[in-house]
Amino acid sequence: MSRGWKLRSSKKGNLNIIPLGGLSEIGLNCTAFEYKGSIIVVDMGLMFPNDNMLGVDYVIPDLDYLTKNGSRVKAVFITHGHEDHTGAIPYLLQKINVPVYGTCLTIGLINKKLQEFKDITAPKLIIVKPREKTKIDDFIVEPIRVTHSILDSVSYAIKTPAGTAIVTGDFKIDNSPIGQRMDLQRFSMYGDEGVDILLSDSTNAIHGGYTQSEKLVGVAFKDIFPKIKGRIIGSTFASNINRIQQFADAAVANGRKVCITGRSMVNNVEIASELKYINIPKANRIDVKYLDQAKDDSVAIVTTGSQGEPMSVLSRIAKDEHKTIKAKNGDAVIISSKAIPGNERSVASVVNMLYEKGVNVIYEANAFVHVSGHGSAEELKMMISLVRPRYLMPVHGERRMRARLAELGEEVGIAKENIIMADNGDIVTLKNDKNMSITGKVQTGREFISGKRLANIDINVIKQRNKLAQNGIIIVRITPTANLESVTAVSKAIGFISDNLFTDMKADIEKRSIGRYLKLFSERGVGNSISMRISKDIAKYIAKKSGVSPHVEILLPQIKN
Amino acid sequence: MSRGWKLRSSKKGNLNIIPLGGLSEIGLNCTAFEYKGSIIVVDMGLMFPNDNMLGVDYVIPDLDYLTKNGSRVKAVFITHGHEDHTGAIPYLLQKINVPVYGTCLTIGLINKKLQEFKDITAPKLIIVKPREKTKIDDFIVEPIRVTHSILDSVSYAIKTPAGTAIVTGDFKIDNSPIGQRMDLQRFSMYGDEGVDILLSDSTNAIHGGYTQSEKLVGVAFKDIFPKIKGRIIGSTFASNINRIQQFADAAVANGRKVCITGRSMVNNVEIASELKYINIPKANRIDVKYLDQAKDDSVAIVTTGSQGEPMSVLSRIAKDEHKTIKAKNGDAVIISSKAIPGNERSVASVVNMLYEKGVNVIYEANAFVHVSGHGSAEELKMMISLVRPRYLMPVHGERRMRARLAELGEEVGIAKENIIMADNGDIVTLKNDKNMSITGKVQTGREFISGKRLANIDINVIKQRNKLAQNGIIIVRITPTANLESVTAVSKAIGFISDNLFTDMKADIEKRSIGRYLKLFSERGVGNSISMRISKDIAKYIAKKSGVSPHVEILLPQIKN
Repeated sequence: MSRGWKLRSSKKGNLNIIPLGGLSEIGLNCTAFEYKGSIIVVDMGLMFPNDNMLGVDYVIPDLDYLTKNGSRVKAVFITHGHEDHTGAIPYLLQKINVPVYGTCLTIGLINKKLQEFKDITAPKLIIVKPREKTKIDDFIVEPIRVTHSILDSVSYAIKTPAGTAIVTGDFKIDNSPIGQRMDLQRFSMYGDEGVDILLSDSTNAIHGGYTQSEKLVGVAFKDIFPKIKGRIIGSTFASNINRIQQFADAAVANGRKVCITGRSMVNNVEIASELKYINIPKANRIDVKYLDQAKDDSVAIVTTGSQGEPMSVLSRIAKDEHKTIKAKNGDAVIISSKAIPGNERSVASVVNMLYEKGVNVIYEANAFVHVSGHGSAEELKMMISLVRPRYLMPVHGERRMRARLAELGEEVGIAKENIIMADNGDIVTLKNDKNMSITGKVQTGREFISGKRLANIDINVIKQRNKLAQNGIIIVRITPTANLESVTAVSKAIGFISDNLFTDMKADIEKRSIGRYLKLFSERGVGNSISMRISKDIAKYIAKKSGVSPHVEILLPQIKN
Repeated sequence: MSRGWKLRSSKKGNLNIIPLGGLSEIGLNCTAFEYKGSIIVVDMGLMFPNDNMLGVDYVIPDLDYLTKNGSRVKAVFITHGHEDHTGAIPYLLQKINVPVYGTCLTIGLINKKLQEFKDITAPKLIIVKPREKTKIDDFIVEPIRVTHSILDSVSYAIKTPAGTAIVTGDFKIDNSPIGQRMDLQRFSMYGDEGVDILLSDSTNAIHGGYTQSEKLVGVAFKDIFPKIKGRIIGSTFASNINRIQQFADAAVANGRKVCITGRSMVNNVEIASELKYINIPKANRIDVKYLDQAKDDSVAIVTTGSQGEPMSVLSRIAKDEHKTIKAKNGDAVIISSKAIPGNERSVASVVNMLYEKGVNVIYEANAFVHVSGHGSAEELKMMISLVRPRYLMPVHGERRMRARLAELGEEVGIAKENIIMADNGDIVTLKNDKNMSITGKVQTGREFISGKRLANIDINVIKQRNKLAQNGIIIVRITPTANLESVTAVSKAIGFISDNLFTDMKADIEKRSIGRYLKLFSERGVGNSISMRISKDIAKYIAKKSGVSPHVEILLPQIKN
């Protein structure tokens, strides 16, 4: 096969591929493609913060490279509607007005999210269809349908005069999916035509074999539902529309009405219903406010909280804090998901609280009620075999996962030197001579989002918070009279070990502070360095007395920050 | 068999069993046995804090019940040397002077730990041997050897005139252990004689089948070691003496010298060597300071950090912060453990950093280099079958694990009403008539330890720390002149979102504070409530401006805390 439909360009340029996030981390997926001055971006994801990112609600990639080159950024293509691929879109759109392309459900979910941002008006959201190409300057971009844990997921084939790249996005190869099938033929066609580089999902590379089909979860539901006599409360990711459909189908088949509750669950089901991705007829539904009047064996609730999120419906039920749904002996809870690393304790805690109430908890430890959305080793090898790329670039995963995908690539036959293990910010260049290498670096990193509004959190603020979090703060206010006839001090502890311990030390802290102040003042006069020096002295005293080191803040009248 | 050796007592009393920790939680294992005024305690464990227990180093059970009844507490028996069974001993001994009984290695480890506490002098530590009974008032206590992930682990059979209890402690049934074998015969003998209640480990009840034998890890080491050409760095729990022995044996068999490093690893190997539980001859060892001069394929390092602990040797190697050991391409790291729930992210982070350096990481995700120390469902059923207790009390585990052990008990043939699902503090009473039930409750709970010294942390202090951790603190110092001719204010932010944002708000905060002060002062005069009211007003302003809610502290000269 010849490359009959490739772009003609009088003078070929280089294709630069620049990952701006998602390498050696979970989340923040974002990759820029640059050809002759034009930039298109694939995915714009967020990350949920670690435990030590205190007070941080979301993390997004440093968008500096894109905003600085704002006029050259022509489009953002989104592979699917998960937040680790879409979550940073609002923060990009606040800075540059760029069209966002995605499939129908993906755009539907993004549109809903953008409505929360009042400062983003009339975003350009463009729906693309699999196998339909979009031409943007010298790029021809084609979505290719894949199977994943959210519907309407696609890979993108990106053709430029310099060569062709395929970005898989998240995928598994589910040959018995619910609904949409993977477009294996289109990947094969590109494989035949010639692909220069494949950027492949690495998430499940360390898992051997094949990921199980989504259909098997439905089989499990059909097996479990008839055995349950009480209420059934199901919990999964709000975006897993197929899972919700399977749960609802099992409920209806067993004479139960479906109650959808939880904000994101209601939102997603609503969007998916409007766009015809899910079908739970009104007649088969029950509103949460009528649950109390329904017989236990006539209802099935589907809701959020499968990750033990503290404010989710399931957590509130477990803690007895939900207004209308009270868990009781005989209820069955099905947690149809796997705890994401870092959430294990929260999920276990929810499970334990439910057990305390006599609830029958059906979850990953005792039943097969979840399958992953990411392909295991054999599926990743299959993708490489279908696409037959000259170069392989493992993306989307921690280092250990990407390292394993590199090994898998070698097993399939990619030469070791053709496997590109890039870092975020690396400029991977496909040159005229068809050789590919890392040729430079752009600024990347992470930015922190806190509260409902945008606010960048300095990294040193996180350090201060960690110190405050460990041992609290002791504040000393020193007040001299005008002529230094007398100096008084009052101290206060917040978050320090205990009130008793502080009470024992308070008089000493105040006396010492006054003493140091008088000494330093007589030596040096007024100056900011005085408070620093007193602070160090008092901190040393407190550490000796208590064994711990709180933040110590000395407030003098002269201090102007 | 008759109960020939039972105690004679003129008038039989009741046996009270009071779990003081370890039920529906991992750690804090501690159970009191009370008969005719005498109390003996089995285990005295600590717990590592959750992420939201900010600034807490250890958690111990509330020892109030034992210290209040200090004169009646005659002995503490320890099942094995893990910290979740021994860690609270120092804090008990600081309050009451009670003898501690345990097997040789267990007492060796406790003795070492107690040396860190200068205020505990001449503790009474008594070594007991399996099958040798200790009589304490009306109790006869016999240790029975079990297999677990630390040597010298025992169950205790506790005989009183009211009846017999067996506390399993942690166990697996390893029929091909390294060294000590489980005393199945002794459990059988008690089963034949009659046991009233079995308090059984529940940790792995939710895992079906059998836990693999420790010996298989040695087989894996023998398979892996010859394939590695560079240095081998092994990491496991410092207390897993058998694992360390197997690692050392594999090293020596492959012509490598063993380097033991990391404080707790060095300590434990030293104690175990002195007591002859481990044998790594001096000739087969190499000191860490000679590592650089040795060939890569002639050394194997065994060290701490298998849980990704930030200050451990392995973490420091991964972060390039270790003084002498620098990880390099070609090194192999074997992490011979499983991440404890809550540590998954830390372990993954260490693995990823090592991969970045080109280190070959061999761990649970890609090799069979660890087995659990806790028995799975079939072993737990075997224990119940051997002991044939009238009553079963699932202990040592989260609720979901204990609930599963209860089901296993029923499968083995214990009547549902004879399975006692107690909570911490419940008084479980074995009466004269041989019936058993929950008859009351004592105070239990948790105490927090922080720093190197003892210090109880108030629960509201943890709440304050969480608030400080989320959004930091803003302090305003208001200074009026004597006659209120002028009022000045200075404010300072610590751990607040960003300096820029605070700079924008600073003047407003100070102006508002002065305004509120003057208004309230003219209405109410001096009073503590003034600072509270100003604080609320300023907090509201900051929340509106910034979208987040830091702690706001107003310091007036009048405040006397």
